Amino acid sequence: MAKKAIVNIYLKNGVLDPQGKATHHALEAMDFQGVNDVRMGKQIVLDVEDGVDEEQVKQMCETLLANTVIEDYAIKFEQ
Amino acid sequence: MAKKAIVNIYLKNGVLDPQGKATHHALEAMDFQGVNDVRMGKQIVLDVEDGVDEEQVKQMCETLLANTVIEDYAIKFEQ
Repeated sequence: MAKKAIVNIYLKNGVLDPQGKATHHALEAMDFQGVNDVRMGKQIVLDVEDGVDEEQVKQMCETLLANTVIEDYAIKFEQ
Repeated sequence: MAKKAIVNIYLKNGVLDPQGKATHHALEAMDFQGVNDVRMGKQIVLDVEDGVDEEQVKQMCETLLANTVIEDYAIKFEQ
């Protein structure tokens, strides 16, 4: 059996997000109303064996998936 | 008041994901066990006014945020 580990990676508060800013400006230029801010993040979906636990996925984030200097991450599992 | 619209954008099934493949190979090269597949997606967090509904966010996805030829998206709201 396998399950999905869903890793959301987003920039820490206070870190400039030029991609989000550009998207925000584009939405305003297209006359979309009511958007105050846009933040752009990554979602990585890992298809893992049942034996893989949160600690191992955390290890993957720390060493490869996230740049922990400027990014935070959240892990959740789905069947 | 404002709320968050969280848009997850991911490649459709069958569309090649070179970034995911590269990440998968890197995890294997680093001796992480039990990972069968990696898919790389985007997560866009929109800070919107309370008046903005799902239909409007869908419109943003269709016209700007997602490339609907190769990508699917899912919208959810959080307070």
